[in-house]
Amino acid sequence: LTAGIIGATGYAGAELVRLLKGHPKIDNLKLSSVSYEGDRIEEVYLNFYGVVSEQLVKAEQVIDESDVVFSALPHAVGEQFANICWQKGRFFIDLSADFRFDDDEKTYSEWYGKTYLYPELHKKSIYGLPELNRQKIKDMASKEKLIIGNPGCYPTGALLGIYPASAIFDSQNSPIIINSVSGTSGGGREPQRIIHYSECADSVTPYKIASHRHSPEIERILAVMARSGSTEKTDISAPGIIFTPHLAPMNRGILSTIYIPLSEKWRITSSQKPQEDEIGCLVTRIHNHYSQFYKGEPFVRILPKGTVAATNRVRHSNYCDISLHIDINGSTLIVITAIDNMIKGAAGQAIQNMNIIYGYDEKAGLEAIPMLF
Amino acid sequence: LTAGIIGATGYAGAELVRLLKGHPKIDNLKLSSVSYEGDRIEEVYLNFYGVVSEQLVKAEQVIDESDVVFSALPHAVGEQFANICWQKGRFFIDLSADFRFDDDEKTYSEWYGKTYLYPELHKKSIYGLPELNRQKIKDMASKEKLIIGNPGCYPTGALLGIYPASAIFDSQNSPIIINSVSGTSGGGREPQRIIHYSECADSVTPYKIASHRHSPEIERILAVMARSGSTEKTDISAPGIIFTPHLAPMNRGILSTIYIPLSEKWRITSSQKPQEDEIGCLVTRIHNHYSQFYKGEPFVRILPKGTVAATNRVRHSNYCDISLHIDINGSTLIVITAIDNMIKGAAGQAIQNMNIIYGYDEKAGLEAIPMLF
Amino acid sequence: LTAGIIGATGYAGAELVRLLKGHPKIDNLKLSSVSYEGDRIEEVYLNFYGVVSEQLVKAEQVIDESDVVFSALPHAVGEQFANICWQKGRFFIDLSADFRFDDDEKTYSEWYGKTYLYPELHKKSIYGLPELNRQKIKDMASKEKLIIGNPGCYPTGALLGIYPASAIFDSQNSPIIINSVSGTSGGGREPQRIIHYSECADSVTPYKIASHRHSPEIERILAVMARSGSTEKTDISAPGIIFTPHLAPMNRGILSTIYIPLSEKWRITSSQKPQEDEIGCLVTRIHNHYSQFYKGEPFVRILPKGTVAATNRVRHSNYCDISLHIDINGSTLIVITAIDNMIKGAAGQAIQNMNIIYGYDEKAGLEAIPMLF
Amino acid sequence: LTAGIIGATGYAGAELVRLLKGHPKIDNLKLSSVSYEGDRIEEVYLNFYGVVSEQLVKAEQVIDESDVVFSALPHAVGEQFANICWQKGRFFIDLSADFRFDDDEKTYSEWYGKTYLYPELHKKSIYGLPELNRQKIKDMASKEKLIIGNPGCYPTGALLGIYPASAIFDSQNSPIIINSVSGTSGGGREPQRIIHYSECADSVTPYKIASHRHSPEIERILAVMARSGSTEKTDISAPGIIFTPHLAPMNRGILSTIYIPLSEKWRITSSQKPQEDEIGCLVTRIHNHYSQFYKGEPFVRILPKGTVAATNRVRHSNYCDISLHIDINGSTLIVITAIDNMIKGAAGQAIQNMNIIYGYDEKAGLEAIPMLF
Repeated sequence: LTAGIIGATGYAGAELVRLLKGHPKIDNLKLSSVSYEGDRIEEVYLNFYGVVSEQLVKAEQVIDESDVVFSALPHAVGEQFANICWQKGRFFIDLSADFRFDDDEKTYSEWYGKTYLYPELHKKSIYGLPELNRQKIKDMASKEKLIIGNPGCYPTGALLGIYPASAIFDSQNSPIIINSVSGTSGGGREPQRIIHYSECADSVTPYKIASHRHSPEIERILAVMARSGSTEKTDISAPGIIFTPHLAPMNRGILSTIYIPLSEKWRITSSQKPQEDEIGCLVTRIHNHYSQFYKGEPFVRILPKGTVAATNRVRHSNYCDISLHIDINGSTLIVITAIDNMIKGAAGQAIQNMNIIYGYDEKAGLEAIPMLF
Repeated sequence: LTAGIIGATGYAGAELVRLLKGHPKIDNLKLSSVSYEGDRIEEVYLNFYGVVSEQLVKAEQVIDESDVVFSALPHAVGEQFANICWQKGRFFIDLSADFRFDDDEKTYSEWYGKTYLYPELHKKSIYGLPELNRQKIKDMASKEKLIIGNPGCYPTGALLGIYPASAIFDSQNSPIIINSVSGTSGGGREPQRIIHYSECADSVTPYKIASHRHSPEIERILAVMARSGSTEKTDISAPGIIFTPHLAPMNRGILSTIYIPLSEKWRITSSQKPQEDEIGCLVTRIHNHYSQFYKGEPFVRILPKGTVAATNRVRHSNYCDISLHIDINGSTLIVITAIDNMIKGAAGQAIQNMNIIYGYDEKAGLEAIPMLF
Repeated sequence: LTAGIIGATGYAGAELVRLLKGHPKIDNLKLSSVSYEGDRIEEVYLNFYGVVSEQLVKAEQVIDESDVVFSALPHAVGEQFANICWQKGRFFIDLSADFRFDDDEKTYSEWYGKTYLYPELHKKSIYGLPELNRQKIKDMASKEKLIIGNPGCYPTGALLGIYPASAIFDSQNSPIIINSVSGTSGGGREPQRIIHYSECADSVTPYKIASHRHSPEIERILAVMARSGSTEKTDISAPGIIFTPHLAPMNRGILSTIYIPLSEKWRITSSQKPQEDEIGCLVTRIHNHYSQFYKGEPFVRILPKGTVAATNRVRHSNYCDISLHIDINGSTLIVITAIDNMIKGAAGQAIQNMNIIYGYDEKAGLEAIPMLF
Repeated sequence: LTAGIIGATGYAGAELVRLLKGHPKIDNLKLSSVSYEGDRIEEVYLNFYGVVSEQLVKAEQVIDESDVVFSALPHAVGEQFANICWQKGRFFIDLSADFRFDDDEKTYSEWYGKTYLYPELHKKSIYGLPELNRQKIKDMASKEKLIIGNPGCYPTGALLGIYPASAIFDSQNSPIIINSVSGTSGGGREPQRIIHYSECADSVTPYKIASHRHSPEIERILAVMARSGSTEKTDISAPGIIFTPHLAPMNRGILSTIYIPLSEKWRITSSQKPQEDEIGCLVTRIHNHYSQFYKGEPFVRILPKGTVAATNRVRHSNYCDISLHIDINGSTLIVITAIDNMIKGAAGQAIQNMNIIYGYDEKAGLEAIPMLF
């Protein structure tokens, strides 16, 4: 298979290059870049020296010569190329937000300040979270869909943590709180003050509180989940969420600490503070529920009880780690999820989607074992 | 004044040394250390070379020769010295948890695994959070109290963020969530795996979820606040809290992101999603409330609307920065607080307490301007 | 092939586990640990959870059941196991210093404070730097040698930088200066103060100046090179070296900045300061020399003129990057080498040696593309 | 005294603001900024919120209203303001390179690509390294000199390490090698790729090898030292130097590892490898020499034998720490110097110069005790 990457010199693009170069089913890579057209990628990324020598060409040429096209362009730039791919019958896997909102142009416009150029195209896309939509992704081609809207990094970690809880949480009660901490690579390769070394090293900084673009993405998918009745609880309305992103001095990783109020059926309701063993029992029930829910998932790891998810346990891998905890009062489920924002949160998940589309082993090219450092 | 520090070679002790050395009212320092008895402190901390040359002696000698004694010993080790100080009529400012629970030995024992050696002594102490107990600290001597239980680092940032909200939050509703991220210096000077460089660099790790010793401290003080009627709302019961600490790769600082459900009187109750200007108005009301609440406080900064607290804005200072935000649905107050865990969270607050006791300018010795890096 | 790792739970051991798990020729892994005997390695390294589940057994059992044995034990602990392997005819690849000194027990004893338990065994070993000794490693078995003394991390980066210069440097002149900066993982997994986060983050610290154990290793191999006439210059005496290691706040990587005085034949001798183009010519000559020297080497990259080696260009790979520069006066060659200390500096090089011994593709299991972060 | 800072919003400017705000002799601060004219500095640096509220005005106004003017503008921008100050009889302390070359316009032009606008002005300046030129700085006003060329950060650490060695080193032999590692703040506040977090974190990178602008500054001052006969050795010619800067992932600090070949008089010349006690004796002699040389210097600390200078021992202070070591062969002196690049390497040294000019205690405003973290 020949894979094309347009926007190959940003961080997500370069990560696609690295991972696809080692993918057993990919024979050729075609790469585009506006800024570095004509250069070889090893000249832009010296770490690729002597290993990845493909020349950077125009996006159109990449599309012409590829079987599947990954777009790592900024939001609202790639839609034109999606359209060309559509015309040519190519799969288009988009790492930007452009195809994450289906035909809900209103929400997209409100948060991204752009309108759809090709509204019809947005009915041809699937939200590429395999754990939610695997079957739909498998069936894409037969359903005349060719476009994957690859999920945002924060939504990936948040949704995988919340998804199994739809049967558990108290939809009548307070919102689900998603407190996330991200590494700096999510900010991309272009220098900017917030990720200038001296401004962000040795500090933790919240940002875009109650105003990050990933909020509506998370809310929309939670609503879809609720509607779809894909869970045992069918009359659920979408939960409210509060999402607060923070920046931490690390290169990779997103840790999400998610607070989910338990429904009456699940929470401990004794008037006294619960005993340790009551809490322990509840953790076990929930642990079993999550383990069952994600049984067979190649990239979700429900960590053993008593251990805690952390970003350095998934580093450089496509895993989403999940650890489960109960508040001392037995009323709130605390879910911790950890992903590598560049892999499961971007390039790895895109490749996972490609693997599903083509019927490859879902782990092909994504078998890197996590490294502690 | 002669100030003594027992346990001077741990990180909190060394920070006391550094700050007291530059304090305009302190003429002499007396330092003790079990591990390094006989050495000069500049031999232990080479950064002090040629600047702080005091010799490390026995704790008893320090107490003998000092007017005020700071204890930076581990929990349950310093109580004997508190008793000696009490016998001799010395002020004893304890940075451990031993005197943070007054006569509630039960809670202390449950969480710290020790009983009180001198139960009577625990009626002679004040919880040293000046913003809450300034008057009590001023009057200590006249009330036959000589002991300060200096607050924990996490509780300081959490309580200062929650304190003004007692008139605002919905006590009937869900718990207050305190999601905190700390630098590594809180773990102390003794090498241990969780703060071994390769294990914690470039990663964020939650720990002691729903089981950190600072939870009962926060809960106890919130209950005291509620009982004391120190706020306009007098019939309040103590709010439940969920406290989740995380470790981030930074030397100093604690950032607490606190989610406080608003009472009916304060939250926006329209059935529609609130308009931006409604949110803006609410932020302004709350901002005014907090500003008024902390008016004249020398070390609390309510940041301008639209800005966000971060640990690198309070680095090396005694400030607690607070920024205020409202959830997109107008129902939850998000308070961000940032402190330097070694200063406002430990040594600086201890000195602030000393300044109040002695009637010094509360800022004496604590005027360092925060450094971005 | 079944590979055994004794001492599998240290950092180098765990890195061997990770790399060998993905090695196309390794069917089984056998792992030992004294500290964690009976546990599964995924319980010690949560990053391995669900991926590497081998149980930790006794070293003797590992040796029994393996074809090739890697030892990641501390110095002077593994010799007994080398002897068992020898008795059983197993290859033994030792990551400690025990077999880096051949029969020069005197130097080993002087620097490591131990004597040889089995002096005969030290005649059966090869210094496992493939770029120097590839043929000898290939021929090991036929020469009745079964033991690899895997090079130290610093010596690997230093020797690869100096090796081609034997024809270039001025042996009569001043010593070669090797100024190296290492990441913290070289200090291992056991907590100790020098790599305690708060002691080493945000700082650079030289250590063991003129007294690091890797000095005699470098000197010995340089002398061997000189004697062996493996270069065009046959009458060379071993150059003196000055080696200064530093610790930097990074997880992985060693950067060596090496200052080599040029011999008369190579240096620019005009009495005037050389012109830019003279310098340029000299750089080109030397660049050609190095490129020629390492032609075909799978893991040495001579970087393009005008670029500079850095540790984040070889991260997680087995490459040694080399960049070449000339002092402004045209008299000193400045060689910069960068390696990942855990891979080319330890586990990767050990596997490279195994690949050579068994006649596998030398890159097998070591094809990871370097990551910028 | 009223102090003015032009270019107050860069990192060096902001550091001047912070230090001068706490200076006991400075009553008023006047600040200029082109980019933020009209704002208050606390709006640009939120860490200054509520503490430093001065408004940013035009440079001309700052000059009008100040007694002494600090310029933290980029190279070749401030000369016009130096001229205005000269006209008005104001002291002008320039942190750029413009006045570090006296009347040697040729060298300045070659390296900085600019010519002098006011050549006469460059005869009115002093190179502001107090340890070298204290008397000249004291006498400035009386000698009709009003301008300080504040030394570069790298030259400060290098020169203080080399200065006492003029009587010791072998000028006939090979060059002095200065291998320096700097934190990122030296790169300034403007975002750029080399100090973009993901590009420089967790890595060490050499840069501008044999081509950094601080090379000619170091060489020029070494030549001045040699000519001036300010040392016991009068017939010295300036030593050649090789200077290699590196970037490390830390906010502050420059560590210089300096290799100085010893003259025959000082080096150990036995044909055998020297004994440990011979080395020890030599270290003692050199240690005494350096200690004597810097006797009474308020900001130079010759560290005890057996200890090593590191950047986290001088953090946030104006100290230059120096540790002294001898190569194992007794022929090379290894001097390690550590400074805080923002303080002794920039703002602190500028204030030290001001203190000398005005006859204040040289330590006024610079008494911060170094912090380990």
